[in-house]
Amino acid sequence: MNILKNHLVIIFSITAALSVAHAALPNPGMEVVAGRTALLITDPQNDFLSPKGVTWGVVGKSVEENNTVANIGVLLKTAKQADMPVFISPHYYYPTDHGWKFEGALESLMHQIGMFDRKGALTVDGFAGSGADWLASYKAYIEHDATVITSPHKVFGPETNDLVLQLRKRGIDKIILGGMSANLCVESHMRELGEQGFEVAVVSDATAAAQVEEGDGYAAALVNFRFIANAVWTTEEAVQAIRQ
Amino acid sequence: MNILKNHLVIIFSITAALSVAHAALPNPGMEVVAGRTALLITDPQNDFLSPKGVTWGVVGKSVEENNTVANIGVLLKTAKQADMPVFISPHYYYPTDHGWKFEGALESLMHQIGMFDRKGALTVDGFAGSGADWLASYKAYIEHDATVITSPHKVFGPETNDLVLQLRKRGIDKIILGGMSANLCVESHMRELGEQGFEVAVVSDATAAAQVEEGDGYAAALVNFRFIANAVWTTEEAVQAIRQ
Amino acid sequence: MNILKNHLVIIFSITAALSVAHAALPNPGMEVVAGRTALLITDPQNDFLSPKGVTWGVVGKSVEENNTVANIGVLLKTAKQADMPVFISPHYYYPTDHGWKFEGALESLMHQIGMFDRKGALTVDGFAGSGADWLASYKAYIEHDATVITSPHKVFGPETNDLVLQLRKRGIDKIILGGMSANLCVESHMRELGEQGFEVAVVSDATAAAQVEEGDGYAAALVNFRFIANAVWTTEEAVQAIRQ
Amino acid sequence: MNILKNHLVIIFSITAALSVAHAALPNPGMEVVAGRTALLITDPQNDFLSPKGVTWGVVGKSVEENNTVANIGVLLKTAKQADMPVFISPHYYYPTDHGWKFEGALESLMHQIGMFDRKGALTVDGFAGSGADWLASYKAYIEHDATVITSPHKVFGPETNDLVLQLRKRGIDKIILGGMSANLCVESHMRELGEQGFEVAVVSDATAAAQVEEGDGYAAALVNFRFIANAVWTTEEAVQAIRQ
Repeated sequence: MNILKNHLVIIFSITAALSVAHAALPNPGMEVVAGRTALLITDPQNDFLSPKGVTWGVVGKSVEENNTVANIGVLLKTAKQADMPVFISPHYYYPTDHGWKFEGALESLMHQIGMFDRKGALTVDGFAGSGADWLASYKAYIEHDATVITSPHKVFGPETNDLVLQLRKRGIDKIILGGMSANLCVESHMRELGEQGFEVAVVSDATAAAQVEEGDGYAAALVNFRFIANAVWTTEEAVQAIRQ
Repeated sequence: MNILKNHLVIIFSITAALSVAHAALPNPGMEVVAGRTALLITDPQNDFLSPKGVTWGVVGKSVEENNTVANIGVLLKTAKQADMPVFISPHYYYPTDHGWKFEGALESLMHQIGMFDRKGALTVDGFAGSGADWLASYKAYIEHDATVITSPHKVFGPETNDLVLQLRKRGIDKIILGGMSANLCVESHMRELGEQGFEVAVVSDATAAAQVEEGDGYAAALVNFRFIANAVWTTEEAVQAIRQ
Repeated sequence: MNILKNHLVIIFSITAALSVAHAALPNPGMEVVAGRTALLITDPQNDFLSPKGVTWGVVGKSVEENNTVANIGVLLKTAKQADMPVFISPHYYYPTDHGWKFEGALESLMHQIGMFDRKGALTVDGFAGSGADWLASYKAYIEHDATVITSPHKVFGPETNDLVLQLRKRGIDKIILGGMSANLCVESHMRELGEQGFEVAVVSDATAAAQVEEGDGYAAALVNFRFIANAVWTTEEAVQAIRQ
Repeated sequence: MNILKNHLVIIFSITAALSVAHAALPNPGMEVVAGRTALLITDPQNDFLSPKGVTWGVVGKSVEENNTVANIGVLLKTAKQADMPVFISPHYYYPTDHGWKFEGALESLMHQIGMFDRKGALTVDGFAGSGADWLASYKAYIEHDATVITSPHKVFGPETNDLVLQLRKRGIDKIILGGMSANLCVESHMRELGEQGFEVAVVSDATAAAQVEEGDGYAAALVNFRFIANAVWTTEEAVQAIRQ
């Protein structure tokens, strides 16, 4: 009897393992429900998206290949036309942030190159047109009464800002996610929103990432979007979903 | 004067961009300090590491190529010999977890194949030797008075368990991280620990990941470890760092 | 013109200040919506609610005055009859938790008196009938297929367990809250759920607290419930709200 | 044998219960260690501390009785003299925050009276001297290169800002806490910092609270400080601890 039981267990395990090996990953999808769904864009700022930004040398090729600048613009415009709530999670560093005692690799790089630097939390001196400012073509959508601009995130995810509260205070539990950069802030937002019980659809061509000797950030992000998100959409698919 | 200033800004931006393009990523490193450093292993459980586990069909090749099972064992043994604190963050699902109303792709898969299933939080009936149990060869290190076993994480990161508190209550702020699987729970732990202000050194061959048609989880993880962690070590390098 | 403006500001400030002084606090209330509302009970365990529990000497009088044991029972029964989801957030300490290097006052006390002690996360040896076990009269409701028992919280709030995720994975955003003890775990759950964007109605006689020389925990909790929660109800009011 | 065991259990329980009833609460204390300890002040803003602030009608008496304004000033001055890191966690509301769909009692009140209102996150128009601005006498300490001003908290605790990260990035794990108001933001900061594994000493006369018909916020806070914090100090005791 015990032998039989063990055999069954082994057979079940083999079957399960095989079925995993051959099956495609599930693709849960996400239904857009009016009033519960928002567009979220991370870091739509010059330092990532403008040819004058400090990271253009490493992200520019990916931004151009994906048509990222235009695609984020299309998402913003479509959401506004559909009266879908829009949330922006920006990235800023203040002078005191340069006093941190330790940093990960990309954190260290961002600090070295003065990325997203502002002169302080309570001054906008030197901000307009700086690397930390919004890409000019997005300003009509972001500097808009109904757009919620959260506090800055300080590493990559929304753990250090008020994004989750701002979403919950408006009854939002489904997120359409784009912005910069794919494997850093976008992915960390996707992961944290998942841990907080949101559904997330990532728009894979409304983002881009650094591609350097040490690795292709965009390729890495695509894998993790597919493994982790509820849905991965193109901008075109996102537009259709928002308009429905 | 203004024209000159603008020129300088442009020149500075170009220089910065170019220097980014050509420079290697920073490599901050992590110093192991006794009393402040711990070994953390995620999901050292049969469903990932045993040929009988439900995911072996998709992770087995990566586990074997990295020599993951032996390498995690070496880390556990070395940490115990050096009296370095050891923390285990396991993954369990209880029957009520199957009542969740939405899931990401891999969450959905894990639930479908009964991965990490237990009969309840307050019973160990059927646990011994199950897919949710520790790999047998690790039990001497994990079922040990000084090893801290956290509550289970329920998605991929430690946001849903007591890991951060357990580390802080012991004055730990530096983590040597290995376990399963590379781009899911290991990476989500790395990211969240970074957001919480820990330094993290990831051990890149003491982990492995699913490699499926939709993407190579291990390759994606390697890129993100290099971009985000304070250090990326081999098991051999980690052993040397622990012993110093 | 400027003088006029300043005068108006001053007048407005005085008016606002006076109106605050005389007005009652707002009383936002909470509407119970089926499918979005859950009953949450913290620490319904012997060490708080049984005359044999280790804290009875300091909480017993408050428990008896409020009729807390019966009231929590009524909430559990009413929620089950109405098919309202029920969540339990328990408090356990494992042997390794006694290795913490620092503790607040009540944390220190709980550890000294062996409150909520269990022999480990992966054993139920000695659990049945212990101070950490459920009050016997609640077992029919708690040991029930549809009741969600979260991982233990380790200080006072749900920051260290999976409560928020479990609620969100079921679409719950409104909480009816009772349990033990009023100014510690109940209040910390109320505060954290508020930070996470839930509405919370606290049931003020389905809880109780320690009353010691250093202060009356129940009186303190009543003030903070009124200041912070969306609603404060009696058990009778909660029962009516659930049944509607 | 079983009877004997049960008797012993009962005897032990009675003893434990009695000892709790008669013993004073533990008083763990907090040692100030240079480089690991910071002063944290919440909401040192006009709307709480100036007679022109919108809450003076309900908090003014408590502020005057405690000598709160002077005491916070003494803490700031003493910390700066001792080169102890100073962190400020402010409270601001932006126009979009008035679009929240639900609020607790005091949240609702704060929004009704325009407390802490600013015109936006990216403008300081109208900020100088407003209710949201720092109390004038603190500006020398707060508008100081080495003072870390976090993003605003949006309910009462630091869950929605970057305080915890900013502390951890500087190796701080011990907090001396004062500011406004005692049972709301100060207490929520104390509780959350405890959940995050910090030691907290609250300065009980460097704070104050609303005292209204519905309850005395200061009295409630004093009880919870004593129950929860690692230490409760007067300003004089805090000054001595900082100077050592």
